Amino acid sequence: MAGNTFGHLFRISTFGESHGEAIGVIVDGCPAQLPIDMEFIQSELDKRRPGQSKITTQRKESDTVQVLSGIFEGKSTGTPIALLIPNEDHRSKDYEHNKTVYRPSHADYTYDAKYGIRDHRGGGRSSARETAARVAAGGIAKLLLKHYGIDIFAHVSAVGTINAPNLQLLPVDELLAQREENIVRCADPAVAREMIEFIDQVRKDGDTVGGKISCVIRNCPPGLGEPVFDKLHADLGKAMLSINAVHGFEYGSGFSGSEMKGSEHNDIFLTDGDKPKTLTNFSGGVQGGISNGMEINFTVAFKPVATIMHNQQTVNAAGEAAEIKGKGRHDPCVVPRAVVIVEAMAALVMADQLLRNRASQL
Amino acid sequence: MAGNTFGHLFRISTFGESHGEAIGVIVDGCPAQLPIDMEFIQSELDKRRPGQSKITTQRKESDTVQVLSGIFEGKSTGTPIALLIPNEDHRSKDYEHNKTVYRPSHADYTYDAKYGIRDHRGGGRSSARETAARVAAGGIAKLLLKHYGIDIFAHVSAVGTINAPNLQLLPVDELLAQREENIVRCADPAVAREMIEFIDQVRKDGDTVGGKISCVIRNCPPGLGEPVFDKLHADLGKAMLSINAVHGFEYGSGFSGSEMKGSEHNDIFLTDGDKPKTLTNFSGGVQGGISNGMEINFTVAFKPVATIMHNQQTVNAAGEAAEIKGKGRHDPCVVPRAVVIVEAMAALVMADQLLRNRASQL
Amino acid sequence: MAGNTFGHLFRISTFGESHGEAIGVIVDGCPAQLPIDMEFIQSELDKRRPGQSKITTQRKESDTVQVLSGIFEGKSTGTPIALLIPNEDHRSKDYEHNKTVYRPSHADYTYDAKYGIRDHRGGGRSSARETAARVAAGGIAKLLLKHYGIDIFAHVSAVGTINAPNLQLLPVDELLAQREENIVRCADPAVAREMIEFIDQVRKDGDTVGGKISCVIRNCPPGLGEPVFDKLHADLGKAMLSINAVHGFEYGSGFSGSEMKGSEHNDIFLTDGDKPKTLTNFSGGVQGGISNGMEINFTVAFKPVATIMHNQQTVNAAGEAAEIKGKGRHDPCVVPRAVVIVEAMAALVMADQLLRNRASQL
Amino acid sequence: MAGNTFGHLFRISTFGESHGEAIGVIVDGCPAQLPIDMEFIQSELDKRRPGQSKITTQRKESDTVQVLSGIFEGKSTGTPIALLIPNEDHRSKDYEHNKTVYRPSHADYTYDAKYGIRDHRGGGRSSARETAARVAAGGIAKLLLKHYGIDIFAHVSAVGTINAPNLQLLPVDELLAQREENIVRCADPAVAREMIEFIDQVRKDGDTVGGKISCVIRNCPPGLGEPVFDKLHADLGKAMLSINAVHGFEYGSGFSGSEMKGSEHNDIFLTDGDKPKTLTNFSGGVQGGISNGMEINFTVAFKPVATIMHNQQTVNAAGEAAEIKGKGRHDPCVVPRAVVIVEAMAALVMADQLLRNRASQL
Repeated sequence: MAGNTFGHLFRISTFGESHGEAIGVIVDGCPAQLPIDMEFIQSELDKRRPGQSKITTQRKESDTVQVLSGIFEGKSTGTPIALLIPNEDHRSKDYEHNKTVYRPSHADYTYDAKYGIRDHRGGGRSSARETAARVAAGGIAKLLLKHYGIDIFAHVSAVGTINAPNLQLLPVDELLAQREENIVRCADPAVAREMIEFIDQVRKDGDTVGGKISCVIRNCPPGLGEPVFDKLHADLGKAMLSINAVHGFEYGSGFSGSEMKGSEHNDIFLTDGDKPKTLTNFSGGVQGGISNGMEINFTVAFKPVATIMHNQQTVNAAGEAAEIKGKGRHDPCVVPRAVVIVEAMAALVMADQLLRNRASQL
Repeated sequence: MAGNTFGHLFRISTFGESHGEAIGVIVDGCPAQLPIDMEFIQSELDKRRPGQSKITTQRKESDTVQVLSGIFEGKSTGTPIALLIPNEDHRSKDYEHNKTVYRPSHADYTYDAKYGIRDHRGGGRSSARETAARVAAGGIAKLLLKHYGIDIFAHVSAVGTINAPNLQLLPVDELLAQREENIVRCADPAVAREMIEFIDQVRKDGDTVGGKISCVIRNCPPGLGEPVFDKLHADLGKAMLSINAVHGFEYGSGFSGSEMKGSEHNDIFLTDGDKPKTLTNFSGGVQGGISNGMEINFTVAFKPVATIMHNQQTVNAAGEAAEIKGKGRHDPCVVPRAVVIVEAMAALVMADQLLRNRASQL
Repeated sequence: MAGNTFGHLFRISTFGESHGEAIGVIVDGCPAQLPIDMEFIQSELDKRRPGQSKITTQRKESDTVQVLSGIFEGKSTGTPIALLIPNEDHRSKDYEHNKTVYRPSHADYTYDAKYGIRDHRGGGRSSARETAARVAAGGIAKLLLKHYGIDIFAHVSAVGTINAPNLQLLPVDELLAQREENIVRCADPAVAREMIEFIDQVRKDGDTVGGKISCVIRNCPPGLGEPVFDKLHADLGKAMLSINAVHGFEYGSGFSGSEMKGSEHNDIFLTDGDKPKTLTNFSGGVQGGISNGMEINFTVAFKPVATIMHNQQTVNAAGEAAEIKGKGRHDPCVVPRAVVIVEAMAALVMADQLLRNRASQL
Repeated sequence: MAGNTFGHLFRISTFGESHGEAIGVIVDGCPAQLPIDMEFIQSELDKRRPGQSKITTQRKESDTVQVLSGIFEGKSTGTPIALLIPNEDHRSKDYEHNKTVYRPSHADYTYDAKYGIRDHRGGGRSSARETAARVAAGGIAKLLLKHYGIDIFAHVSAVGTINAPNLQLLPVDELLAQREENIVRCADPAVAREMIEFIDQVRKDGDTVGGKISCVIRNCPPGLGEPVFDKLHADLGKAMLSINAVHGFEYGSGFSGSEMKGSEHNDIFLTDGDKPKTLTNFSGGVQGGISNGMEINFTVAFKPVATIMHNQQTVNAAGEAAEIKGKGRHDPCVVPRAVVIVEAMAALVMADQLLRNRASQL
C-alpha cells in the first residue's frame, strides 16, 4: 500500500517528481461552500519557493499554482480540488552524477532498494520539491480552519545551536508580521540576524546546518483528536516526521518533560470563564490525545541538508567505491523555507480532525 | 472516524475500558501459516502486567490472554485473530472521586468535552490498561518479524535525569537477558540500580517521574517504508506518540542532529559486503523514509504519571473549584512497564511495512 | 490487506469461525450518548438464529450476545463497542468429511488455495455463522438510524419461482408485524404459505433452493452517498454481495430498467411539499449516487445452499476423485434467516453514510 | 469522508468536472518496473471517446491523455502516476437551462441537497465524463494484469430487449476483434446489426434506451478476494454500481440462480490437470468470495440515459413547477461507450486484489 495519501476526511494525495512535468495534489473532502482565495494559496507557495533570498537555493521556480477542478465561482463545491504546479527550471543534466552513484544521506540507495528503478533527476520523488504540493493543499486547510477561527503559526526557533527564546503571547498576526520581516523566518529580530549571519557563513563554507521550527495552534476548540491511535499529537507528529529531513518531534513539555516530576508537570485546572483553563501548559494543549482548548504547541527538529559542496566518499549501484562532488543548487539550511511546510502539515491534521470530530456525538 | 484501528495490511483494532468486562484486540492481516506461540504472547503481557515489582502499581491483574479465533492447530489461518484479556481487579469505587471532578493532566475533561459522556472508572478508555491489547497484538507481530529474522529491543535509557549510556553493539539476545535482570528494565546494571533507588524514593514521596525508552531494530532489510507520508520513521513516530504519556520522539541523530553540520552528519557509504553499509548511522537506519539495512534506532520521551499522592486544586464538571486527593494504585514511573509497549508498537509498524513492501515491485 | 472491516465512520470488524470459541464484532465510530437497547439487539439475533423453525437448520445455538466494552449506563460512550457471541453447539466431528475433501460450491478449495491452511470445521470462517456478528452490529446501526427516524424493512420476495407481489405502501411497522407472522418472513401471508410448503418439500427431497429478499429504506434524508465511487447504491450493493450466497443485486428499476426507454424511466419531479418528490421511483431513491428523499429500494438474489443430502462427485486436496455425502445440519433455503442480515448490512451502510455526510458542508 | 478514491493497494483518485479545466487521475500503488504503453492507454480512451460514431453523443473531445509523473524511461517507478485529460469542447451555455432547474433522473437536485452548491455546467462532477479518468487508470491496471496473463473482456449483451447469446469460449483476442468490428460493441455480428438499427431509431425519436454489458475475466489464478467483506465479487459489484447509470449487477448464475435447486446449481469438481476445475460454472469463478481459477463472469444493467429530446415537467431550486427541454449532445444508449469503462473498473478491482493477495501467506 503506497503512501502518497494523507488524512481521512480532509484527505490529500500528492504526485510528482522534482524534474518531471509537474507536481500537484488532489484535496478530497473539503466541505462545500468554502470561499477559496487563490491569492492566499499562491502567497503560501511563495514562502516555500526556491530562490527567495540569499540563504536559499538558487533554483528558479515560480511555483505558480493552477486550479483544475473542485472550485466553482470562487467556492469549494465538495468535489475534489486538483491543484497543479508545473516544473520549470529543471536542469536535469546537473544530476547525471547521481544516476548510478549513491549520494550520502540521500534516498538514492533506498529508492533503488525498494523499487529497483529510480528517477535520479533532482532526487525524483524524494526531492523536497514534493512539499510544494503539501503547501498548496495546506493553504486550503488553513482557509477552512480560519473559517472556524483556528490560527496556526510557526517560526524558526533554532539554527544550529542558536536558539530563539520562547514565543511571547502576542497575537498570531503580530508574530506573523514580525517573522516575515526577516529572511530566516524567526519571530525574534535579534536572534534572526544572528541566524542569518551564521547560515551565510555555512553557505560560504560549502556546508549546511540543521535547525528547529516551533509551531503554535490557537483557538482550537476542545474535543479534537481520536483516541486511542489517532491522538491529536500523534497525527501531528506523523505529519511532521513525514517532512523531508525531520528527525524529531516533541509537544508540550516534550523531551524535557521526561526529566520532571508529576508534582511539577501537572497542569492545574482553573475556573476561568466558561471552559476550564490550566495554570501551566506542559500538556501542550492535548490531554489523552484530545485538545483541551489551550494553545497547542510543538517543536520539530531538522537535520542538516545532505548536499554539501565537499567531495565525499561513497559507493555506486554496482557496489564499487566512488567519489561524489557537491553540485546542484541547494539550501545551506532548510528551516526558513520549511516554516510554511510545518504550518501546512499542521493545518492538514487539524482540518482532518475537525471534520472527524463531527461524528463523535449524536 | 474513530481511531481505534492501527496499521493497514497488518492491522489491529483494540477495545475495552479499564474497569469494563475485558479488553481485547482483533489482529487482521497476519499471513497464514505462522506458528503462534501463545506462551510467548503471555510472557510479553507479563512484562507489562501491573504488580510485578515494588516500583509498579499494585493493582492485581493476571492479564491472562485468551484466543477466540484465527488460530488453528497452532498456526495462523489468515482470518482475524481475536485476543481477549478479561479485567479482574477493578475496584471501581476507588474512582468515585473523579466521576465529576477533573483530575489534572488526565483525560477526564477532554473525554467529556469530546463525547459528552464518560466511563470515569479507572480512566475508562483513556487508561493505559488499553495498552495490554497492543502488547498482545504486538506479540503476534514479533513472531512474524522473527520468522524473517528481524529483532526488536527496547530498554529504559533514562529516568528523570539519570541517563544510561548508548547501547553497545551486543546481540539483541544478550541485551534482553541483561535488561530482564533488573526491575527497571535498563540494560546497564549499574545505571539500573541508580534508577530503581530513585524511583523508590519518588514513590515514597507520593510523587512520580518521567523517563525515556530507547529502541533498536536489527536485521531489517532495506526497502521498508512508504514515501511520501508513510515513511518508516513517521509511522514509528506516530505509533510511539499514540502510547499514553509519550511527549516526544526522535530517531537517528534526533534533536541533536539539528545542531550539526552536513559535513559531520552525512553517513558515508562503504563497500562492505554485498549491500552498502554506512560508516556512521546518524540516519538511524532510515533514508528518505525507507530502511537502508542499518540498525534502526529511536528514543521516546515519557512525561511523569499524572496521578500523584498529593492534594491538587482542580475544577469539576460544573466549572466549580474542587480539590482532588491522589488515590488508586498507580506507577511512580511508567517506563519500566512501557518497554514492552514500545517494542509492541514498533513490531506492529514493522510487520505492516513488511507486508506493504510486497507490492512495491512486479 | 485483509477484508474483515466494513464501513468508514461507522465501522465494524468481525472475527470468529463456525466452530471456534466465539464469534464477535467491534463497532467503532458509534456516536456517543446513543441509548443501546440490548434486548433489541438480542431480538435481532433471534431472527437469524438457527433452529427457529422446521424450515431452518436444526443446529442449536442460543446466540446470546455479550457486551464487553463501549457502553456505560446504557449508552454508547464513543469508544469501541465489542460484542461477543460464544459458540455452543459445535459438533466438529460432523465435519471430518470435508477435512481433505472439497465440497462442491463451498469455499473449501478456495480457502486452501488462498491461505494454504484451513479450519475445516463447519466451514470455519466461510460459514454463514459469521453473519451473526453482522446482525449484532447492524442492531446498533438500526438504533442509530431510528434515532434519526430512518426505517429499514426487508422480506422474502421470492423462493425459487414463487414471487411475492410488490410491497404495498404500508407503514414499516405493519409490514414488520405481517412478516413476523410466518416462518418464511414474507410480508404477503398467502404467498408465504405457498413458499413454506415448497421449502418443506425441497427439504424432504434432501435438496435446497434459492430465493430473493427485497428491502426498503424509508425517511432517508436527501444527501446521503459519496460520489463518485462510494455512491449510496454502490455501497449497498457491496454490502449485499458480501453476504454468503448472494449472486445478484439491483436497485430501483434494476435489470428491468435496462429494457426501458428514457421517456418511460425518467422520474418526473413534483412540487409536493417543501422538498421535491418524484411521480415514479425508477431511481430507487438514489440519483447520482446520492439519496433524493424518496423510498430507497433494492432486491438481493441468493443462490441455493450448497450443502445437499445427495451424494456428489468431487476432488480431494491431493487432486484425486472423491465422493461427498451430504451431512451436517443445514438450511433448505437461506432466505428466511437472511432477511435480518440484509437489514443489518443495509443499516451499517446507512449509518456510515449518515455520519460521512456530516462533513459535506461547512 | 469523500468518495473519490477507489482501491487499496492499487488505488486511484479521480478529479474533474465536465466543463472544468481538465479531468484526471492519480494511480498510487502500481508496482515499479511495469512497462507503460501510453499508446495502449490512449486507445482505451478512444473507445470511450464521444463522437466516435453515429450512435454516440456528438460532443467533440480528443480525450488526449498526458502523463505528469510516475513513469520514467517508459516504466512505472512505484511513485504516483498522474494522468491528465484536458477538457476541450465545453459549450457551457448549452447548460444554462439546468442552472436552477432540476433535470428529471439526473443528479442536479441531489448534488444541491448534499453540497448546497453545484457546478451545473454539463452535470459538473456527476457527468459520465468523469469515467474517462477511470478508463485511463484502468489501462494501467490492464497492463499489470496482462503482465500476469490475466485477460478481461466485456461486450454489449443487450440493448433494450435485444439480447446477445452467451459468449462462445473463443479466445479473448478473437472476441475483442469481433467486438470492435461494429459500433455497438457486441461480439455477435448479427445481433450487433439489430442493436444498431434499434438505437438509431431511438435516437431519431429523441429518446434513449438501456442495455446490458457482460464481462469475462480469464486466467485469474485461484486465491484472489478478501473475505468476509471484500469478497472478489463484492468488490466487482461495487465497482460496477459506481459507474453512472448502472442499476444492477449479477455474477455466475446471478438472479436466475435464485430460482434453482442446489442439486442443479452445485459446480462439481473434476480432476482435470493440476488444479481442480468444475463441470459447470454457476459460481462465476468465485467461491466464498475467492477466485477458484475458473472464468469469472458477470453482467451489468444500465438504465436508459436521462437526457431525452422531449419536453418534461419538473421543479426548480425554488420548488416551483418548471419545464425542461432536452438540449445538449447526448448518447441515445450508453452501453457501446461503457464497455471499456466496465473493463477498466474490473481491471482496477483485479489489480488491487492481486496485490492484496501477496500478503495472505508467509
